[in-house]
Amino acid sequence: MLIVMRAQATEEQIRAVCEKVESLGYRAHSMPGAQRTAIGITGNRGEVESGSLEEMPGVQEVIRVSKPYKLVSRDVKPDNSVIRFPGSPVTIGGADLAIMAGPCGIESLEQSFAIAERVSRAGAQFFRGGAYKPRTSPYSFQGLGEEGLKIMAEIRDRFGMLIVTEAVDYESLELVEKYADMIQIGARNMQNFSLLKRAGRARKPVLLKRGIAATLEEFLMAAEYIMSEGNYNVVLCERGVRTFADHTRNTLDLSVVPAVQRLSHLPIVVDPSHGTGKRNKVTPLSRAAVAVGADGLIIEVHNDPDRALSDGMQSLYPDQFDALMTQVRQIAAVLGRTIPDVPESGVLTGVSRLSNS
Amino acid sequence: MLIVMRAQATEEQIRAVCEKVESLGYRAHSMPGAQRTAIGITGNRGEVESGSLEEMPGVQEVIRVSKPYKLVSRDVKPDNSVIRFPGSPVTIGGADLAIMAGPCGIESLEQSFAIAERVSRAGAQFFRGGAYKPRTSPYSFQGLGEEGLKIMAEIRDRFGMLIVTEAVDYESLELVEKYADMIQIGARNMQNFSLLKRAGRARKPVLLKRGIAATLEEFLMAAEYIMSEGNYNVVLCERGVRTFADHTRNTLDLSVVPAVQRLSHLPIVVDPSHGTGKRNKVTPLSRAAVAVGADGLIIEVHNDPDRALSDGMQSLYPDQFDALMTQVRQIAAVLGRTIPDVPESGVLTGVSRLSNS
Amino acid sequence: MLIVMRAQATEEQIRAVCEKVESLGYRAHSMPGAQRTAIGITGNRGEVESGSLEEMPGVQEVIRVSKPYKLVSRDVKPDNSVIRFPGSPVTIGGADLAIMAGPCGIESLEQSFAIAERVSRAGAQFFRGGAYKPRTSPYSFQGLGEEGLKIMAEIRDRFGMLIVTEAVDYESLELVEKYADMIQIGARNMQNFSLLKRAGRARKPVLLKRGIAATLEEFLMAAEYIMSEGNYNVVLCERGVRTFADHTRNTLDLSVVPAVQRLSHLPIVVDPSHGTGKRNKVTPLSRAAVAVGADGLIIEVHNDPDRALSDGMQSLYPDQFDALMTQVRQIAAVLGRTIPDVPESGVLTGVSRLSNS
Amino acid sequence: MLIVMRAQATEEQIRAVCEKVESLGYRAHSMPGAQRTAIGITGNRGEVESGSLEEMPGVQEVIRVSKPYKLVSRDVKPDNSVIRFPGSPVTIGGADLAIMAGPCGIESLEQSFAIAERVSRAGAQFFRGGAYKPRTSPYSFQGLGEEGLKIMAEIRDRFGMLIVTEAVDYESLELVEKYADMIQIGARNMQNFSLLKRAGRARKPVLLKRGIAATLEEFLMAAEYIMSEGNYNVVLCERGVRTFADHTRNTLDLSVVPAVQRLSHLPIVVDPSHGTGKRNKVTPLSRAAVAVGADGLIIEVHNDPDRALSDGMQSLYPDQFDALMTQVRQIAAVLGRTIPDVPESGVLTGVSRLSNS
Repeated sequence: MLIVMRAQATEEQIRAVCEKVESLGYRAHSMPGAQRTAIGITGNRGEVESGSLEEMPGVQEVIRVSKPYKLVSRDVKPDNSVIRFPGSPVTIGGADLAIMAGPCGIESLEQSFAIAERVSRAGAQFFRGGAYKPRTSPYSFQGLGEEGLKIMAEIRDRFGMLIVTEAVDYESLELVEKYADMIQIGARNMQNFSLLKRAGRARKPVLLKRGIAATLEEFLMAAEYIMSEGNYNVVLCERGVRTFADHTRNTLDLSVVPAVQRLSHLPIVVDPSHGTGKRNKVTPLSRAAVAVGADGLIIEVHNDPDRALSDGMQSLYPDQFDALMTQVRQIAAVLGRTIPDVPESGVLTGVSRLSNS
Repeated sequence: MLIVMRAQATEEQIRAVCEKVESLGYRAHSMPGAQRTAIGITGNRGEVESGSLEEMPGVQEVIRVSKPYKLVSRDVKPDNSVIRFPGSPVTIGGADLAIMAGPCGIESLEQSFAIAERVSRAGAQFFRGGAYKPRTSPYSFQGLGEEGLKIMAEIRDRFGMLIVTEAVDYESLELVEKYADMIQIGARNMQNFSLLKRAGRARKPVLLKRGIAATLEEFLMAAEYIMSEGNYNVVLCERGVRTFADHTRNTLDLSVVPAVQRLSHLPIVVDPSHGTGKRNKVTPLSRAAVAVGADGLIIEVHNDPDRALSDGMQSLYPDQFDALMTQVRQIAAVLGRTIPDVPESGVLTGVSRLSNS
Repeated sequence: MLIVMRAQATEEQIRAVCEKVESLGYRAHSMPGAQRTAIGITGNRGEVESGSLEEMPGVQEVIRVSKPYKLVSRDVKPDNSVIRFPGSPVTIGGADLAIMAGPCGIESLEQSFAIAERVSRAGAQFFRGGAYKPRTSPYSFQGLGEEGLKIMAEIRDRFGMLIVTEAVDYESLELVEKYADMIQIGARNMQNFSLLKRAGRARKPVLLKRGIAATLEEFLMAAEYIMSEGNYNVVLCERGVRTFADHTRNTLDLSVVPAVQRLSHLPIVVDPSHGTGKRNKVTPLSRAAVAVGADGLIIEVHNDPDRALSDGMQSLYPDQFDALMTQVRQIAAVLGRTIPDVPESGVLTGVSRLSNS
Repeated sequence: MLIVMRAQATEEQIRAVCEKVESLGYRAHSMPGAQRTAIGITGNRGEVESGSLEEMPGVQEVIRVSKPYKLVSRDVKPDNSVIRFPGSPVTIGGADLAIMAGPCGIESLEQSFAIAERVSRAGAQFFRGGAYKPRTSPYSFQGLGEEGLKIMAEIRDRFGMLIVTEAVDYESLELVEKYADMIQIGARNMQNFSLLKRAGRARKPVLLKRGIAATLEEFLMAAEYIMSEGNYNVVLCERGVRTFADHTRNTLDLSVVPAVQRLSHLPIVVDPSHGTGKRNKVTPLSRAAVAVGADGLIIEVHNDPDRALSDGMQSLYPDQFDALMTQVRQIAAVLGRTIPDVPESGVLTGVSRLSNS
């Protein structure tokens, strides 16, 4: 923490602030400058509660400096984290890009199989789909629940894809942990700390979406909540933030990708579907996300978007997803990243049996 | 929903869009204009999933129009809702202003009693204090839990104040429902729909804080979640939104007060402590909140802010709270609102026995 | 400026940064902390150009600290500035509230006189109206130009009101300086530094509106531009900022009023008409602006808003303005502020002759 | 424009609104829906001034629909505009990417030549540099003025680069028009309509930067101002918008690129230097900008950023720019875009003689 004094602060005022700081158990470093004095505070373990410092005579401003990151930080672990899935060659955070695709919500077995067949063939290693849908209105379709999870488990068996799906509370998290390979925490729950801690006790990796107005610090601290409970397998996901701009539903903040990579060892993927909310923006922003250095993409694909029960406007048609993958593979190559080829059978063997155990 | 066609859209393109709309089960109203044609859509019960409409040839833009409010809306209930508490004369949403005050977090019985004694004497009818604290860092003080709730129950017995405190998950909500008079849902959980639904099944009124980046529609729909489960006793709370402005921690959006009052019958109070994050802004913004027409205030007061375990920087000293109340009473009078006088004993009789039953 | 080192930064890295700082001509203050070292920089006259410091090994972050305010600052002038107008008893920044009212754009002599007659009678000391209108579209009504200024000069003669109107370039500024009593710089031009400097050479006070996304620092530095050229008569104006919130056209940031008052000696008024963009929000937010401690209001009033050539949606009817003034007078009294009574004749004598000289 | 009536609006109220609309000279289209009636308004040439419609009994909301674009719109000109420069093979908006590079501010002939030599060799066709610097503080370096323009003219002669530089008022615009090949209008002046109109009368192409809080509509309408005066050679530039996010100086909004391309025929380039404000983010975001489909880049490069008089923190070293160009060329190829090879001599013949005539 740093205290900036007013230009005309007196010696006594400066001394009084220093004494106050010391009386709170910290150390004060007075730095006289050309125009004014600044006082640095050290010796704090956590956040300094500056209390009444800002109100003391002669004080202009109090500036918070310390960063509270611990486990998420490259300070603690300089090398990139690579997330692995038992029994599967798929990784997130290594040389391979992770491609997650599927419908917004799971609606039926037929729909899900039709989509999984297409996105798997195009190169997606993960099937995404909502069984529990957080919707702005209580009267909107809220998802199939456990029924949806069972459908996704069948997709893993049939197509060898890894399953990622959202949990919204303890009960759904328990079921997601049981049926899926990766537990998604949605943007609206990024600061639902009880849920984060529960996810931190889960034995599956967590995909943590950035809150709609989360700063980088809050985003990383949400990951810290999960890790502080012992689950170190966290993948971050940028999905757009809320701004004044109205030409997209959210403003996709691609600069957060290198910003995360500078501070943290955790992988980060990008969701251009929610990040733009418009089908015709998904492909260009997917290219941009790979070019900026993201570790993967999560994309909504629907075989009949006109009749989708949620988010139809932003879902790609399977043919559009094929075209997207072709473009994205080429850009990945420029960055020395790869998207693994799909085996003939379309099934990555050994996945289904193990990852559900 | 409204579809705006491009200026050079052909007759066939317009017809094709209308047919598509009808095929989705809605009714299309074509409105030729000077420059371009717009197509209105009616006949939808909920939200239209516009699917591929935006991608059809000749379409410029698709604009959502319908508002999804039901139970929160003045359409359904034209008169203001007045929230009552069993056994207490205190109301929220009537002529009396509701004043809620207390520390950010409950730290000890002594601290809580000292603060309650002061704010109660100054005219606060509600004691606020956190037993479960959602903190950005997992390493910050997280609250005393049930111990804190018991302290607050003693405050009700001793000072006759009503207790409002935050619940962060099912478990804490159950306890808050048991010990307190009003269940607070915090800004970070405004779209934690599982928790909202659980609060909708509680038998105590709910204080719902606006999310840090919530639109008016999302704010009202969060209340709709609670009401849709049967709990109609919801009080809204503006507590600042996140913007680029950095001179306060959040930007207090006072215009949301008349905006809510226009659309909804629910009462709305204002939290200038979190809304500004700076002690020296709390009193001026409290005056402004009452002047704009809010139904009450929620204010952080601490007897020793320098040593507060959380949010010390924004807590008022008891003397500052006294001065605030004096100013606020006078402004309330200009608007024809009142803050009830405190009885000699400082105890509103009959409260403690009943409201906990 | 403050440099925060990484936790595992070595002694050599810290030393290298300090040497770099000294080589740039500044002084480095190393502050070892529990977790990491911070390095304070002093000795800079203006802003430090941190150049490659952020890229040096071991550096976590570089934080700007110095505030560049000079003439606007309370550091330089502790007492409030009170703006005076030659030959008039009216002031801005003293005990009296300054009330400015009138149509968005000057449309005709009849319209202007009709409005001036009403707002003057209700207590407005200033007539506001646009002769030069900055409009988003080049095809919208752009104002009557000098013709409009002449109409306003007649209003001063007839009603004894002071005239405040916007200048948008050198040419219009010269004319506004000639005809009006106060030169308005609009929000879109808040960082049009050429225009600010020209206003700084004008001999009339300047009303400086906050830019739609201006931080407090940028707002004050825009005033500094004007003052640095010798014109110390600057009145700031909060008129709403752009945020994600869509229930008002802008988000009125009332907390900037006490924030300005803490840092600067300049007066600040509030514009709830542009700040909300909705007629039904103007009166409540006017009450709030006075309650928060603003030095005045600027309000759009039109006698026939339905047919106004600009901004009709946010203009009050004269009767609504009367009601607003009644409410605002009472709230002003609570804060010890006054709105001077209107003399019988409705004319404050001596104004018209002198202020145009 | 669309008027949404309340659910319980009566037949008379609906009829009264329709009559009001017709009395204003427009046509009303009543659309009864399942829950409520909406009324479409057509027949307006420009923007409807909705006046008191929102206040009429039974009205819930008034929604603006018409888009005011004319000359910027693909409605008027379906094919992409390609900007050409007399005597030069360089284009903006065609298959070639336009690369603009140079220092933030022109400081000296030596500095400028050193940088031009490097960026030209690396493939930049345009030299950028400020002779007139809009700075937040009046006490910061404001540029060399005409002296700086003369230095840039020498760069054109020596290196065959096209010159793009900012004009801040009429006087500087006249000089920039004389010395440079392309006139930049900066973000702070995006709604300085007098300057836009003057640029619309210039005979050189204009690079128009997006305002820091400009919506897509405002951005396009600023271009419309220039075009409405007869200058159709406008290039748009995304340079980051202001949001709550604090990990970069601005939030680069890459989704505006496809959004512009959908609505307008004008080219759009991206400025990742100002868009991020951090050197270590420039290269990743440059890759992303090309990948999203931008027509070019504008990048700050300085040979001695530590001692740059402005914006040193975001300027690349020449070696970093070389590396950026290598990466960007490969990504451009994936999109079928090219960056022309630099001729042996490093000089594109014929440019200097003609483009300044």
